[in-house]
Amino acid sequence: MKAIQWLGDSLRILDQTKLPLEIVFRTARTYEDVAAAIKQMEVRGAPLIGAVAAYGYVLGARQYQGELDAFEAYMREVQETLLKTRPTAVNLFWALRRMEDCLRENKSLEALEPIQQRLAQEADKIAEEDVRGNRLIGEYGNEIIPQNAQILTHCNTGSLATVEYGTALGVIRKAYASGKQIHVFAGETRPFLQGARLTAWELQRDQIPVTLIADSMAGFLMQQNRIDLVIVGADRVAANGDVANKIGTYALAVLAQAHGVPFYVAAPTSTIDLKLPSGQEIPIEERSAKEILEVFGVPVAPPDIPVYNPAFDVTPAKYITGIITEKGIVSPPYAVNLLKVMVRS
Amino acid sequence: MKAIQWLGDSLRILDQTKLPLEIVFRTARTYEDVAAAIKQMEVRGAPLIGAVAAYGYVLGARQYQGELDAFEAYMREVQETLLKTRPTAVNLFWALRRMEDCLRENKSLEALEPIQQRLAQEADKIAEEDVRGNRLIGEYGNEIIPQNAQILTHCNTGSLATVEYGTALGVIRKAYASGKQIHVFAGETRPFLQGARLTAWELQRDQIPVTLIADSMAGFLMQQNRIDLVIVGADRVAANGDVANKIGTYALAVLAQAHGVPFYVAAPTSTIDLKLPSGQEIPIEERSAKEILEVFGVPVAPPDIPVYNPAFDVTPAKYITGIITEKGIVSPPYAVNLLKVMVRS
Repeated sequence: MKAIQWLGDSLRILDQTKLPLEIVFRTARTYEDVAAAIKQMEVRGAPLIGAVAAYGYVLGARQYQGELDAFEAYMREVQETLLKTRPTAVNLFWALRRMEDCLRENKSLEALEPIQQRLAQEADKIAEEDVRGNRLIGEYGNEIIPQNAQILTHCNTGSLATVEYGTALGVIRKAYASGKQIHVFAGETRPFLQGARLTAWELQRDQIPVTLIADSMAGFLMQQNRIDLVIVGADRVAANGDVANKIGTYALAVLAQAHGVPFYVAAPTSTIDLKLPSGQEIPIEERSAKEILEVFGVPVAPPDIPVYNPAFDVTPAKYITGIITEKGIVSPPYAVNLLKVMVRS
Repeated sequence: MKAIQWLGDSLRILDQTKLPLEIVFRTARTYEDVAAAIKQMEVRGAPLIGAVAAYGYVLGARQYQGELDAFEAYMREVQETLLKTRPTAVNLFWALRRMEDCLRENKSLEALEPIQQRLAQEADKIAEEDVRGNRLIGEYGNEIIPQNAQILTHCNTGSLATVEYGTALGVIRKAYASGKQIHVFAGETRPFLQGARLTAWELQRDQIPVTLIADSMAGFLMQQNRIDLVIVGADRVAANGDVANKIGTYALAVLAQAHGVPFYVAAPTSTIDLKLPSGQEIPIEERSAKEILEVFGVPVAPPDIPVYNPAFDVTPAKYITGIITEKGIVSPPYAVNLLKVMVRS
């Protein structure tokens, strides 16, 4: 099931906050609709957020009714609104920068309509590249998946986190499609339960064997030698190879190292941010206490308890066996090898 | 709030599955009621399970209508039913063995009633010793709590897990009562949410500063140097110092060691099982998939997804800084020092 569908004048969005209980689609007709959908996590997943923001930019351009002179200033506001939705996944910033560049390159055109068309083409290109990139991540990643692998993953990195196919789940999909007998352990991923709600659901639909666990059970599985490798996605990769990803990733990486279990990150190069020297500079979003205090609106704790709810954490590069990109698997030393992969066309 | 109250002919039980949303008491009038309450986790926590089982044994004895000759055989059935409720916490077995010993010592009495009275006295003694033991655990444990300590705990080890006061939470209570400015991070403890539902609630009622986190956030807090020590309870301690405790404890212990954070276990000596050479022999209860697939009856995953749901894990002794008992703090080497503490009167 596709997370989004571009309809030319609107974006059809599968509301992921309702899954798996309900399959609800929403139609975003304005860039404000798109910004709200990102903020409320109706769409989530770093690569998907990038593509959705690009389409939001296109919708913003299409909404414009004013003079051509003031268009660029207006589009800066559109961009600003979209940029402010979520701070951690760099794909958002990357995609909007591409859209801004596209606008700049085409602003000499004499009418709004052709500019709007070029922007729509650029957003389509971002979306198509994501799908193609995920397929390549799957191909490269499949090389490191052993026959009969017991694979631990966290959060959701599948069709629902990307335009299609997935990053870490793309690797899992490809390994399964290539005939390997694999088994996936999916961490439920509190507080937002992307593992339980989305990953379990996606894998089940594809008939890939999956067992759901609470996040705290991963260490015990490793202790029992029941995990052969860990593979997760990323929201931002710093120049030194530090990786921001869904909260809980860091703990899994420490546990993996303590048990000699390889720990892989799968992410398109659009997730790599060479401007940041290390993970310490990655802004970590903190989300509402409600995500921890309530589950689907049902209170699970005293209502006024203080909560700490970081949505992401940072895994230092030293814990990461390899970073699987659409241009190949990047190995340590990351400071050198990430740079190499980024300049490679 | 007390988890249980012995009323002479019945046991009043605070139904912990309903907390913190509702405060519901149940009255157990038969040993079968008691067995069901333990099984359904209306009462839980290793020391509390021990005391509750002892009162269940008393209720069983009071239910008996037959001849004195057949009483012992009947009581073996009562004991068997209570023993089978949960496999991991050794306090259950320990308390029932004490009750069995008490029965054996008093079986020469010529009437049922005095035997029943002796059994009730023994159960009271078990309960009173637990309260006294917890106070001592608090005293000893307070010595290792620094001023301004940021303390991470897991599951519930407070009044609700014991007859009164608590083990790990007893230490926290005592540290707070002694004037130390402490702050507790409570892991929510999926899947049963004892941290969110019970620990947060207990600490809030005692006005001890607490912040609730998802279990997967503990590693990130340690990475930020925001945890000074970890203190948890135990369901069974093997002769070599390996500790079975709530699922997720092992992961916290590995993370604590990776970050140089002291990791303490607080447990009465009734939790120590010298018959088991190591934690590998401790039976680990697996509970229903529903605990992971639903939260308060609300589905959070596709309903037919396979689940792995161990209720406990085993933390090897090498990760444990000290075991705080009512007879003092036991340090490594545990094989020697646990034996010493067990023979000490």
